[in-house]
Amino acid sequence: MKQRRILLFTGNGKGKSTAAFGMLARALGHGMRAAVIQFVKSDDAVGEQRFFSVLPGVSWTQFGKGFLPRDPHSPAMEAHREAAREGLEAALEALASREYEFVLLDEVCFALGHGLIPVEPLVAALRSAEDGKIVVMTGRNAPPALIAAADTVTEMTLVKHGYEEGIAAQKGVEN
Amino acid sequence: MKQRRILLFTGNGKGKSTAAFGMLARALGHGMRAAVIQFVKSDDAVGEQRFFSVLPGVSWTQFGKGFLPRDPHSPAMEAHREAAREGLEAALEALASREYEFVLLDEVCFALGHGLIPVEPLVAALRSAEDGKIVVMTGRNAPPALIAAADTVTEMTLVKHGYEEGIAAQKGVEN
Repeated sequence: MKQRRILLFTGNGKGKSTAAFGMLARALGHGMRAAVIQFVKSDDAVGEQRFFSVLPGVSWTQFGKGFLPRDPHSPAMEAHREAAREGLEAALEALASREYEFVLLDEVCFALGHGLIPVEPLVAALRSAEDGKIVVMTGRNAPPALIAAADTVTEMTLVKHGYEEGIAAQKGVEN
Repeated sequence: MKQRRILLFTGNGKGKSTAAFGMLARALGHGMRAAVIQFVKSDDAVGEQRFFSVLPGVSWTQFGKGFLPRDPHSPAMEAHREAAREGLEAALEALASREYEFVLLDEVCFALGHGLIPVEPLVAALRSAEDGKIVVMTGRNAPPALIAAADTVTEMTLVKHGYEEGIAAQKGVEN
């Protein structure tokens, strides 16, 4: 019997979203249909999107406006909140739908952590997801309610990163 | 200018190999050619292999015999050592070859940590790899020499895992 699985990749190290994309590949290798919902991110020229979004069985949607303004009271925040709310709606739909066996909510923890969306409706939707559904969530600073709702949680810890040694972001590595 | 990049995903948490597979997808999305060399693993029915190994631009080879015998002095160890040595040869070749822009050495840390292969030739090959080459290595207990050779290192820490709650390994999640 297949159980509902809820996985969470959090922490400040590199590898959270890439681990989720690796799981997506794994799920597609088993013929599953997948919904990818990206919060915060708005860059559609990155390698993972180019690679996966054209595949049959993958629905890939971005609900982000990129970097947040530094001032949380900036009027520009409203556009980010609106985008995140749309992402949450899409996430709740994908979690409830039988169309997708695999649901990836990329950077949802970031959106939650910055108060762009509330955590309660997401936790409720996770708890009502069907058996056999695989849900993978990523982002720094996962809220405790999400950690509690997940069955498998990994903290990615930065040991060292090329940025510190002055290495620039590079195609195939950082994007 | 593209630099040589050496990334390492280690630790006891879930997500090391999947992060590497996510990076593979990212690299393929940018049109790179990739060599995947798997140590230890011998199961070719897993989702990631089904998914990636049939793609153009991917060379996927396993040099593993599965789980090690408990007794390191068991005669059965020799077959594991031999497989790992062949994997190391293939790794050194891929690192030196212009054919591959992305080289993934999956579970190489496991093979090193169990003394199946020596670390020195690998470190030497990493240090001589060309600019622009992306190398990703995975596995628990990365040796200090490998951490020193890498520019970006993430420790995947287990916060919780479904196994502990009695959840069985499942297609699309664990394999």
